[in-house]
Amino acid sequence: MRALGRHLLAELYGCDTRVLNDKERIEQIMKEAASRSGATIVQSVFHLFNPHGISGVVVIAESHLAIHTWPEYGYAAVDIFTCGSDVDPWKAHEFIRKALGASHYSTVEMARGELGEGVSTHGSAETMRELRV
Amino acid sequence: MRALGRHLLAELYGCDTRVLNDKERIEQIMKEAASRSGATIVQSVFHLFNPHGISGVVVIAESHLAIHTWPEYGYAAVDIFTCGSDVDPWKAHEFIRKALGASHYSTVEMARGELGEGVSTHGSAETMRELRV
Repeated sequence: MRALGRHLLAELYGCDTRVLNDKERIEQIMKEAASRSGATIVQSVFHLFNPHGISGVVVIAESHLAIHTWPEYGYAAVDIFTCGSDVDPWKAHEFIRKALGASHYSTVEMARGELGEGVSTHGSAETMRELRV
Repeated sequence: MRALGRHLLAELYGCDTRVLNDKERIEQIMKEAASRSGATIVQSVFHLFNPHGISGVVVIAESHLAIHTWPEYGYAAVDIFTCGSDVDPWKAHEFIRKALGASHYSTVEMARGELGEGVSTHGSAETMRELRV
């Protein structure tokens, strides 16, 4: 059974708390990670919360990357969801993990869009999507 | 062990293909779902791809909701990631599932940010985050 997408759910612990509360730096890291994975960036949105913590999403032509940081716990929840064989989500994962200075982490890869035998996924419609709007 | 967040990964199959390719309708559904879960919407971004398919994210004060649709397969990958006890991600899930007309689905709930015994999560810093920027 072939899946349309790969989704990494990363739990990053023991991160650099200064980085976790630096909105510009986090946005830079997430966009660089998207590029390193081979993805095409469509749009990104990042927000700094009060008293602390950042939420950000990079929409890519191949799905999305997201991050939520809790500087008070040195923790970041990172999602890297990609589709298509041209993108390697683990390259983004390694870049983010190192850039945040995580001392330990726990990451799972989930298959998304597992289509049954009766549904053909031949061709590359899902990997060739272009931005229209 | 207490977790900071709850993350639903929903695989929605047999959806209404017209809805899956209607950007305005999908955005409306996702924002309404966020509201029904009790979340506070910060920003939303939605894109229509060529030849078809929509990607969209609703950033909420309590994390995010995301959707990627493949109208050609009647499939949508939906993520509902919330933190705090005031938000019920399953309310968003039920609304989205019905609004897309999914004939069947497979959803898992993942705990995000499981902190060890040595880390106090008392207080409500993680649930009381306000938008700063």
